[in-house]
Amino acid sequence: MRENVKDMARKTKQASYFLANVSSFHKNQFLLQLADNLERYEEEIKKENRRDLGRAKDMGMQPSLLDRLELSSSRIQAMASGLREVANLPDPVGEVIEGCKRPNGLLITKVRVPLGVVAIIYEARPNVTIDSVALGIKSGNALLLRGSSSAVHSNRVLIDKTKQALSQCGFPPEAVNLLRCESHEEVQELLTLRDYVDVVIPRGGAGLIKSVVENSQIPVIETGVGNCHIYVDGSADWEMAEKIVINAKIQRPSVCNACETLLVDEEIASQFLPSLLCTLKKKGVEIRGCEKTRELVEDIPLATEEDWYTEYLDLILAVKVVGGIEEAINHVNQYGSHHSEAIVTQNYAAARKFLEEVDAAAVYVNASTRFTDGGEFGMGAEMGISTQKLHARGPMGLRELTTVKYMVWGTGQIRE
Amino acid sequence: MRENVKDMARKTKQASYFLANVSSFHKNQFLLQLADNLERYEEEIKKENRRDLGRAKDMGMQPSLLDRLELSSSRIQAMASGLREVANLPDPVGEVIEGCKRPNGLLITKVRVPLGVVAIIYEARPNVTIDSVALGIKSGNALLLRGSSSAVHSNRVLIDKTKQALSQCGFPPEAVNLLRCESHEEVQELLTLRDYVDVVIPRGGAGLIKSVVENSQIPVIETGVGNCHIYVDGSADWEMAEKIVINAKIQRPSVCNACETLLVDEEIASQFLPSLLCTLKKKGVEIRGCEKTRELVEDIPLATEEDWYTEYLDLILAVKVVGGIEEAINHVNQYGSHHSEAIVTQNYAAARKFLEEVDAAAVYVNASTRFTDGGEFGMGAEMGISTQKLHARGPMGLRELTTVKYMVWGTGQIRE
Repeated sequence: MRENVKDMARKTKQASYFLANVSSFHKNQFLLQLADNLERYEEEIKKENRRDLGRAKDMGMQPSLLDRLELSSSRIQAMASGLREVANLPDPVGEVIEGCKRPNGLLITKVRVPLGVVAIIYEARPNVTIDSVALGIKSGNALLLRGSSSAVHSNRVLIDKTKQALSQCGFPPEAVNLLRCESHEEVQELLTLRDYVDVVIPRGGAGLIKSVVENSQIPVIETGVGNCHIYVDGSADWEMAEKIVINAKIQRPSVCNACETLLVDEEIASQFLPSLLCTLKKKGVEIRGCEKTRELVEDIPLATEEDWYTEYLDLILAVKVVGGIEEAINHVNQYGSHHSEAIVTQNYAAARKFLEEVDAAAVYVNASTRFTDGGEFGMGAEMGISTQKLHARGPMGLRELTTVKYMVWGTGQIRE
Repeated sequence: MRENVKDMARKTKQASYFLANVSSFHKNQFLLQLADNLERYEEEIKKENRRDLGRAKDMGMQPSLLDRLELSSSRIQAMASGLREVANLPDPVGEVIEGCKRPNGLLITKVRVPLGVVAIIYEARPNVTIDSVALGIKSGNALLLRGSSSAVHSNRVLIDKTKQALSQCGFPPEAVNLLRCESHEEVQELLTLRDYVDVVIPRGGAGLIKSVVENSQIPVIETGVGNCHIYVDGSADWEMAEKIVINAKIQRPSVCNACETLLVDEEIASQFLPSLLCTLKKKGVEIRGCEKTRELVEDIPLATEEDWYTEYLDLILAVKVVGGIEEAINHVNQYGSHHSEAIVTQNYAAARKFLEEVDAAAVYVNASTRFTDGGEFGMGAEMGISTQKLHARGPMGLRELTTVKYMVWGTGQIRE
């Protein structure tokens, strides 16, 4: 019989106290050891992964999802490289962020410390298992992982190799634990274990995220949903605007920072839109437009209220002609998911207004929304993009997996 | 008929967009205007407050709670002074926290911005209404307030004066709204309004906080519950230890940073404890002890498992003799609420071990736990003490009522 979630969470919490004060050198040793283990046991990992692939094929999984599930030699190599890259990043733990000596002589320091136990609930791709281990352990956290049932054998073998590396390096193997993925009740129970779990991070589709947010009693960091807009202002450089829209829509349409709605200033719509939409259509993009867009270009279905709210993650673009920057900002704030928003403009006042008034994690002037990414922002690696406002907003790197502690050094002070 | 919560929240959200970009000068003007209004309408405020006091007396409210409910002249004066002090604090909004120019030329800046709409759910003391308005508006947030039904008339008149000052200064009066306090359903609905409310902060007792944490779909900042410990190490200066324990227990027993459990190293327990406990008893403190404590001092009831978990907020102290620092740290991490913890020691290694291994917002060496406070930490004012690890930990000042936004300035960059 396997242990229950609460026992597992309690042991993980215990291990978190060990991890909180481990040296960077020791944590990096573990990451490098795990990288070696993945390469060494490549055949075993591929064999377990084939069990998942076989079952998924039998159940009729789509080819695109099967591809995400597969652990090829190059993907195993990429996981190992990822671990080595994270080992090279600076350790955020122990940083003294600020401090002061108070008039009464108390020396106050605000120090960066690990969160403790981080639970990560994720879907399909088994390489998220190793990504999470890399970032979680480097930032001094113990981990409770819950992957999808379609990747059960792949995740198990990856966690076996992780626990082996933990033991090899003198860490408690309970520092990383994998929950059973068959049971929905276990996730529900996990989300109530406030004494043992400090933070929950869901990584996956909108349905998963919504379910975690609505059911968790533990603080959640929301990641991912990106209903991103590009607003082409009346003063925009048309060539630049076209390049940016095409890049943000088609360079990788399945990701959260791809553009889903194009807003165009009515001043230029009749001249700018027809050729752009023609180009997009040729590149396989389906257009859904507002009434005005449909007057300008033939054969475009009417965008519904729902379209303005939708993150397509596909070669579909909603297009709306707006009366100017004010309407554009209102549309973005009303329908957007506060992820990544861009304006294309040559007008200084419009650029500044958009940057200040749009409520999103990342706001761009004259650049593609596709740049919202830990690597592109220079963080080295990321645990998703936070679209909430508490704790972390935008790409979450190692630092976003930490909290702070006030260490106060006294000489007998009491409060009068 | 009064409007429903959702409409009120939507209007508050709309006002938050105005507030996000208001100048510090303008916000300070409002705070000073409100301070003047409170002084000017003192009689009206006291009259409304007397309606609450009268009803509370009729319903048999305890004298200590009646005292908390009262708005005397000096308390109204204190609210006005508080507003003027917050007007003098630096504005956290607009601070550029960090930034860089990426190799592709993108100029990335991480800028401090308001959270948006902050909902505050609080109990008894009506001055929390004005404290919340001061900190909330200064940090550029719109507010949804929900006070207790016992303070309904006091809160209403304070919000009337707030809305009047908002209008006088050209702010939308919808920037601050008071929910009806009679309806429990309204709070439940509020906690689901993720599109309009960015953060919920419960300020009050453990029951209120638990209910909000368990029911909210909106991110919560937990404040307040403090089951704080003092560990007197074998090497402690006894005189210092006695002063610190007495201060932390009796200087103000009803607050979250008061000491609830004393842990004493067995090395010194038999000589140190009897005289300290005798002094505490003389000062009216009820002692509950472990078996060993009861062997040392007569007439002490046995502390139960529940005592170790309890935040008394009263002149009661649980006392336990422990086998050394390891057991002390384990006890604190297991039973504590991760608020404020102190060690009294002359041993350098013990001091460092306690600071590093205790998992709490504030950890002290040789000082009273009573210092965990925005004012004492030099923040100027506070919206409670966060005991969670996300976003804010420890005293929450103006900065903790903000989030960040990445503003990215491009020149046509697209992602390859």
